[in-house]
Amino acid sequence: MDTVRIGVIGIGNMGSYHALYLANGEIKGAILTAVCDINPERIKWAKENLKGDIRLFDNADDLFESNCVDAVVIATPHYDHSPIAIKAFEHGLHVLTEKPAGVYTRQVREMNEAAEKSGKVFGIMYNQRTNPLYQKVRDLITSGELGDIKRTIWIITNWYRPQSYYDSGGWRATWAGEGGGVLLNQDPHQLDLWQWMCGMPKRVRAFCAFGKYHNIEVEDDVTAYVEYPNGATGLFVTCTGEAPGTNRFEVSGDRGKLVIEDGKLIFWRLRTPEREFNSTFKGTFGEPECWKCEVPIKGNETGHRGIMQNFVDGILKDSNLLAPGIEGINGLQISNAMHLSSWTDNWVNIPVDEDLFYEKLEEKIKNSNFKKIIKEQVSSVEGTF
Amino acid sequence: MDTVRIGVIGIGNMGSYHALYLANGEIKGAILTAVCDINPERIKWAKENLKGDIRLFDNADDLFESNCVDAVVIATPHYDHSPIAIKAFEHGLHVLTEKPAGVYTRQVREMNEAAEKSGKVFGIMYNQRTNPLYQKVRDLITSGELGDIKRTIWIITNWYRPQSYYDSGGWRATWAGEGGGVLLNQDPHQLDLWQWMCGMPKRVRAFCAFGKYHNIEVEDDVTAYVEYPNGATGLFVTCTGEAPGTNRFEVSGDRGKLVIEDGKLIFWRLRTPEREFNSTFKGTFGEPECWKCEVPIKGNETGHRGIMQNFVDGILKDSNLLAPGIEGINGLQISNAMHLSSWTDNWVNIPVDEDLFYEKLEEKIKNSNFKKIIKEQVSSVEGTF
Repeated sequence: MDTVRIGVIGIGNMGSYHALYLANGEIKGAILTAVCDINPERIKWAKENLKGDIRLFDNADDLFESNCVDAVVIATPHYDHSPIAIKAFEHGLHVLTEKPAGVYTRQVREMNEAAEKSGKVFGIMYNQRTNPLYQKVRDLITSGELGDIKRTIWIITNWYRPQSYYDSGGWRATWAGEGGGVLLNQDPHQLDLWQWMCGMPKRVRAFCAFGKYHNIEVEDDVTAYVEYPNGATGLFVTCTGEAPGTNRFEVSGDRGKLVIEDGKLIFWRLRTPEREFNSTFKGTFGEPECWKCEVPIKGNETGHRGIMQNFVDGILKDSNLLAPGIEGINGLQISNAMHLSSWTDNWVNIPVDEDLFYEKLEEKIKNSNFKKIIKEQVSSVEGTF
Repeated sequence: MDTVRIGVIGIGNMGSYHALYLANGEIKGAILTAVCDINPERIKWAKENLKGDIRLFDNADDLFESNCVDAVVIATPHYDHSPIAIKAFEHGLHVLTEKPAGVYTRQVREMNEAAEKSGKVFGIMYNQRTNPLYQKVRDLITSGELGDIKRTIWIITNWYRPQSYYDSGGWRATWAGEGGGVLLNQDPHQLDLWQWMCGMPKRVRAFCAFGKYHNIEVEDDVTAYVEYPNGATGLFVTCTGEAPGTNRFEVSGDRGKLVIEDGKLIFWRLRTPEREFNSTFKGTFGEPECWKCEVPIKGNETGHRGIMQNFVDGILKDSNLLAPGIEGINGLQISNAMHLSSWTDNWVNIPVDEDLFYEKLEEKIKNSNFKKIIKEQVSSVEGTF
């Protein structure tokens, strides 16, 4: 194979964005051959806006049977990511799914099993993994420069959304439609990066507020405390009701502290590791000498196109994926644990009890009496992810 | 009265510091006339180092009966602050106590009752209330410039202490000697400033780690989540085992966000309050216009001398105190709640159940099997508070 024929399933906000740059030939070795959407308005949009010989489908099954694609990009509402991916694998297709991997871990585990069984390339659109800032933090941690992690704090409260955003789509911010709020829609990137850089926590105590700042039934404000296997602790704070909000990530370790804020990384490096200093220093007051280090950040964030290119290269050249699809379950584990901890007002261990989570989620869906006034529209997503 | 005769009770680290500048005549309208310490070494130090006609006592009762002081400064270990203050009030003396006000709220409530009954001037050494940065934040909040508070986050993890610090005093970092660790010794200033600026939380869920980074029995690492009466949430993160640590305070409100870090205050001010924007904006993505404002900070932090002068002025001129002693119970309520929440692994309401807290603290003292290797020494405290 020298060209991957790609079909995009779901051409709402994100799917139409992917379809456009694929149709424009911006991904080497890839060609857009099909799109699929259940909404006739979106098919009409595709006819009018996508260049090239592209087949249009109103359901995914017909696309799967069409033999006109080698790979699919799934950009449907969250609940459908896993079942559509499973069907695609069964049809021998490579899959790149939008985030989140799914809504509950049972679903995603089944998707991962189908992926492994198929042997096909499976990626997830964690485009922020292409950001060299986070890559550098990961490098400094995994290489041991920072030493054993003591604490991680991500304040990611700059996901501001006004009420009109929630009113713009019927599936948005409902238990039945999206399976959650800020944790499922805005935060999957940060939840993934957090575990990608710092590893998975072992237990979670979270405090979610549901519809605190908006007329929605899901969470729009979350504070979560986590504990890691090595005894380190962490915080994740997120909100769609604060302006201007903050995006500041701090991780401290035995050899200092890393801080990302305003797109810059500072490494406060200790000349002597703290644990060593602690046990050898003889004075009463004192602390290890600390250097403020400017660490060079090279390269650009290649974003969605970078992940798409990496996925296509994975198919054509068998190269490693930056964001393997099977890792999508990690961030979701954390997000599910945050929900479950709030619902039960208690600690939740990771891995989450997948049946208990599913049962509680079904309860929320069944007991929902939330009525939406929908003003459906497709919006530009530039600069929002 | 045109001169206040002051006695300092306890001349270890802090007390000797206060005694020195008082003996040097650095406080207008005050004269040091007595010091008191149960340790003969400290009395010897006083003889050799304090200028002027100063009476030396080896117990507080003799000082109280001596008629040579109008006011006392209490700088003993924490547990003794309240009982000594109560005795001083009974002797008709004005009192300035070091922080914390005490170790448990029952004790401090009794002290506050004795203070009110006596009608004497009662201050607490919250020297950081003299910092114009925190005064400005309090001003911006109480005047309504920030709008209703949504979230407060204080990361105060730069209280680094090596093991040798804990080994330098027998009472340090023990349940019997100090009644706690970082919350009782290092954090009283921040706990006070936090409530002084943002008000008291109504409930607390805290995660204290005891002896995590040091060979001590009390907490040296704390993450606490709080909820305020208006629905706002807050975080307080503190540690003596991290280097270089962080001191960053953020408070967000309906009209923007205040951040103090590196001794600077930034006000991110919204042109339209967020709640108003939320209900009126018609687009899908958008947020209120935000201005980065440099707010002028005038004046200097006058510190311990400032609080001491303010206390003496309160006696001589009946002027208002910047740090009234009866407010010392507020920060202690929060600290007691954090301990109790960790001990019970549950929510704790404020005001704290004072009997339950005392019972649990007594248990800790009784069940302590911690043996200290003491290398007693008096250390310079410059730059540590």
